[in-house]
Amino acid sequence: MTTNGSDGGGPLRAAAVLTAGSWGTVFAKILADAGRRVMLVTRDDALAATINREHQNPRYLPEVRLPDRVLATSDPAEALAGSDLVVLAVPAQVLRPALAVWAPLVEPTAIYVSLMKGIESGSSRRMSEVIGEIAGCGPERIAVVSGPNLAREIAVEDPAATVIASASAATAAAVQAACWTPYLRPYTNTDVIGCELGGATKNVIALAAGMVEGLGFGANSVASLITRGLAETSRLGVALGADPMTFAGLAGLGDLVATCSSPLSRNRTVGEKLGRGMTLEAVLAEQRQVAEGVRSCRPLLALAHRLGVHMPISRQVERVLYDGLPPLEAVKELMSREPGPENRSGAPVPPREAG
Amino acid sequence: MTTNGSDGGGPLRAAAVLTAGSWGTVFAKILADAGRRVMLVTRDDALAATINREHQNPRYLPEVRLPDRVLATSDPAEALAGSDLVVLAVPAQVLRPALAVWAPLVEPTAIYVSLMKGIESGSSRRMSEVIGEIAGCGPERIAVVSGPNLAREIAVEDPAATVIASASAATAAAVQAACWTPYLRPYTNTDVIGCELGGATKNVIALAAGMVEGLGFGANSVASLITRGLAETSRLGVALGADPMTFAGLAGLGDLVATCSSPLSRNRTVGEKLGRGMTLEAVLAEQRQVAEGVRSCRPLLALAHRLGVHMPISRQVERVLYDGLPPLEAVKELMSREPGPENRSGAPVPPREAG
Repeated sequence: MTTNGSDGGGPLRAAAVLTAGSWGTVFAKILADAGRRVMLVTRDDALAATINREHQNPRYLPEVRLPDRVLATSDPAEALAGSDLVVLAVPAQVLRPALAVWAPLVEPTAIYVSLMKGIESGSSRRMSEVIGEIAGCGPERIAVVSGPNLAREIAVEDPAATVIASASAATAAAVQAACWTPYLRPYTNTDVIGCELGGATKNVIALAAGMVEGLGFGANSVASLITRGLAETSRLGVALGADPMTFAGLAGLGDLVATCSSPLSRNRTVGEKLGRGMTLEAVLAEQRQVAEGVRSCRPLLALAHRLGVHMPISRQVERVLYDGLPPLEAVKELMSREPGPENRSGAPVPPREAG
Repeated sequence: MTTNGSDGGGPLRAAAVLTAGSWGTVFAKILADAGRRVMLVTRDDALAATINREHQNPRYLPEVRLPDRVLATSDPAEALAGSDLVVLAVPAQVLRPALAVWAPLVEPTAIYVSLMKGIESGSSRRMSEVIGEIAGCGPERIAVVSGPNLAREIAVEDPAATVIASASAATAAAVQAACWTPYLRPYTNTDVIGCELGGATKNVIALAAGMVEGLGFGANSVASLITRGLAETSRLGVALGADPMTFAGLAGLGDLVATCSSPLSRNRTVGEKLGRGMTLEAVLAEQRQVAEGVRSCRPLLALAHRLGVHMPISRQVERVLYDGLPPLEAVKELMSREPGPENRSGAPVPPREAG
């Protein structure tokens, strides 16, 4: 299922994807299916050789055939030379040191595309902010991809939609054109803050949703958590200058629902194991890839604290992760506290207490 | 797990619940746990006798112990005499003829509480509108209950939240007090239109979500459908005068997510069977209780048509249900059409076509 996206029969343009985790590998397939030559950067030679020989990534995306247009290399310089799209897919906390090495190798007009959904520890910066800072480029050269995009489902070409956000509508449209395929419909949006925040926060909410599942509660509880989780995400977003409508869209509600409801989600899986009583250490030891919510929880809360925004669900997740609060107690406290009025017209009046 | 809700040691007040389907039976348990005497109306003597003997409803809610304060009767007059809360839980299309019989038996100041989530055929009226019309009472005597409330989960006291909406804040608060239990937290809201519409539309969207599941697609597709489904619900709601914030709350997003993600949902189950290739006739023959979305789909679309609101997902559900459109084609058409701009700032620009 490929489309030829070359311009008027000219040479195919090239993209580099760094690095070859599951979402990065799937995005390489998407770009290739949409018409580009893609260089996928691996951490070691052996994996690159395997991908080039077998046309699949046995480590992070086994059994998914990659298009011939996807080639792997462990040499970032080789991948970045001539690439006008630089797709970044590394753990959020790795971006700063990794990009410091890569940025000097990037073509001067190339567009950076962030697939990352996290917030940097310490600085509480969003990924596009870190890119701008390290690469020294303006917002018109940066786009972010965010939406209900479980990598393994897109890998098998289940129909999906996503959002391409950039401060520059032209940049968003260029990236949209580069990844439009029959199985992925990208929409453009100029609200970078909202899209990135939706992507980062949902990982924290998914940890909570997983805990609720792991404790044995059902769909009512998870749905209530998703609803209140999106409300606290919107509050933080609005305080940061995001468009509140973004959170009702694919990068907000859509991504949150997909992540909280699928067993393919790493963050939900981590939460579920915590809910069943495993320690964080034991859970993380079993994970091959990073569950971003574990690392983004604190910088998100730091941001919320600075802006005076109340995020009760994220706060309970932090307490479970770092203060040893048992998940059952965390959930009980959430259920028994007032989450605020259901609408803006007034606070709910508690009925008389049990007698 | 009961609380004594009697006023200052006086006699317990009474409520009538008509009739004893699964949600009606669970709501009888809730009211009793919150302190009331409850008369649960059954359609026949045999079921009433069984409930009174075994303290469970083997037909619609087997294996859930009902409080002793719940008594069953097949005589509506016996149940309604002395009840200051009249809880209505019948299929949406049955409400009008049933209430015409019951209304003359209702105490003159009793509050009507609707648990129903549907729209009347022909009139396209919401349930509270039908109640006001048939009972001849003002909006201050009517409340509706809507939220992520899968009956079987609440029956086993999984923590849940719900919304009690009434045009009268005092009425909403009275009903809130009557159903607040340690496992159910009711919030008040004065947006009756939004809460009822959220409840009715989600059944139609759940049919679509079930189809997507039945066709074998994953969480990305379902999450996208939920996102766009809530968007079309909000559009209709705003046109009817609802508060758009209601759709971001428990009676909108919350109920939609719970219904679309749980195998306990009748509407989702019907959709799933349709997606797997069963005919509507065959599916409905297997259902013991009504899947409201099947009947509410057309009156909802009639309402949307009258108001000039575009509801592409509901329309595809109608075509599958009534025009023989295969579910796979319905979903493909939804995926390939423009669902509109992701945000309000502009429409997405389709990239060049596959060449």
